[in-house]
Amino acid sequence: MTRPQLDEMNCAIARTLDVIGDRWTGLILRDVSLGITRFDAIQRDLGISRRVLSERLATMVDHGILQRVAYQTAPARYDYFPTEKGADLGLVLLAMQAWGNRWLFDDEEVPLLLRHASCGNEVSPQIACPECGEELRPQDIVPVPGPGGVDDSAELTAALERWSQPGG
Amino acid sequence: MTRPQLDEMNCAIARTLDVIGDRWTGLILRDVSLGITRFDAIQRDLGISRRVLSERLATMVDHGILQRVAYQTAPARYDYFPTEKGADLGLVLLAMQAWGNRWLFDDEEVPLLLRHASCGNEVSPQIACPECGEELRPQDIVPVPGPGGVDDSAELTAALERWSQPGG
Repeated sequence: MTRPQLDEMNCAIARTLDVIGDRWTGLILRDVSLGITRFDAIQRDLGISRRVLSERLATMVDHGILQRVAYQTAPARYDYFPTEKGADLGLVLLAMQAWGNRWLFDDEEVPLLLRHASCGNEVSPQIACPECGEELRPQDIVPVPGPGGVDDSAELTAALERWSQPGG
Repeated sequence: MTRPQLDEMNCAIARTLDVIGDRWTGLILRDVSLGITRFDAIQRDLGISRRVLSERLATMVDHGILQRVAYQTAPARYDYFPTEKGADLGLVLLAMQAWGNRWLFDDEEVPLLLRHASCGNEVSPQIACPECGEELRPQDIVPVPGPGGVDDSAELTAALERWSQPGG
């Protein structure tokens, strides 16, 4: 059997996992988003090898989620900053953090919180309906084929048909 | 250098990546959430080897994000369903899907959308302040140490101090 390539699957989750589904990539993006933007600082913070960090940073630049900005020229040294595309992954990181804080740490052991700067409350990622603005529960949400269709999988097509049936 | 274990890092994102940062795990959770709940159907849908799927399902049950429910006894066959802990990962999947739909597909190629059942609008994950209920922009959010502290990293501690400074 040919192992399918994630970046060729007709699925937004598969293609996103292809970009950030490497464990180190998620942590590098976390560091850069928090303001740890230089090679040596990221390397020390994560404790990974320089070779792996160098490879991952190059791939993240290739994917357009990080950009390099020189802060020194002789020798050349760079800050890594999120692009708009990379910053937009913040919601994925926030959703991971909220889940991890809830399920993998006791309340008194939570290492990091995110606060709304103006009011000081802890923020929480949620799913909202852009029409009514209310938070949605999972049972309120129905998957439907998009304009590109999901015709490459009989199993997914059958699952979506079950969702479209009354009471399904 | 000892490679750090993700599940021992004092970070909710690292520990969450330890649970779902394997590429297949994210896709298996997607399938199960969509209603593709049986081994053979998941295997056909994803096109992965039976050995890898079997290993990943066992790990997901161990992590408490999937539960097995027998639908047949001779031979034993199981449906896999998300637990409450697994269903709560839905926001992570939704955030990935929203990002992938936006950045990795042209509008007319988007394969799957999620609709609010009652009003029919496409749902979108967002970050909200539980106090004011408004959607937050990334620049409105400030990371702060939680009750468990982040004292295992000088780089992270320094980054958080920069956030706490006026104009930082």
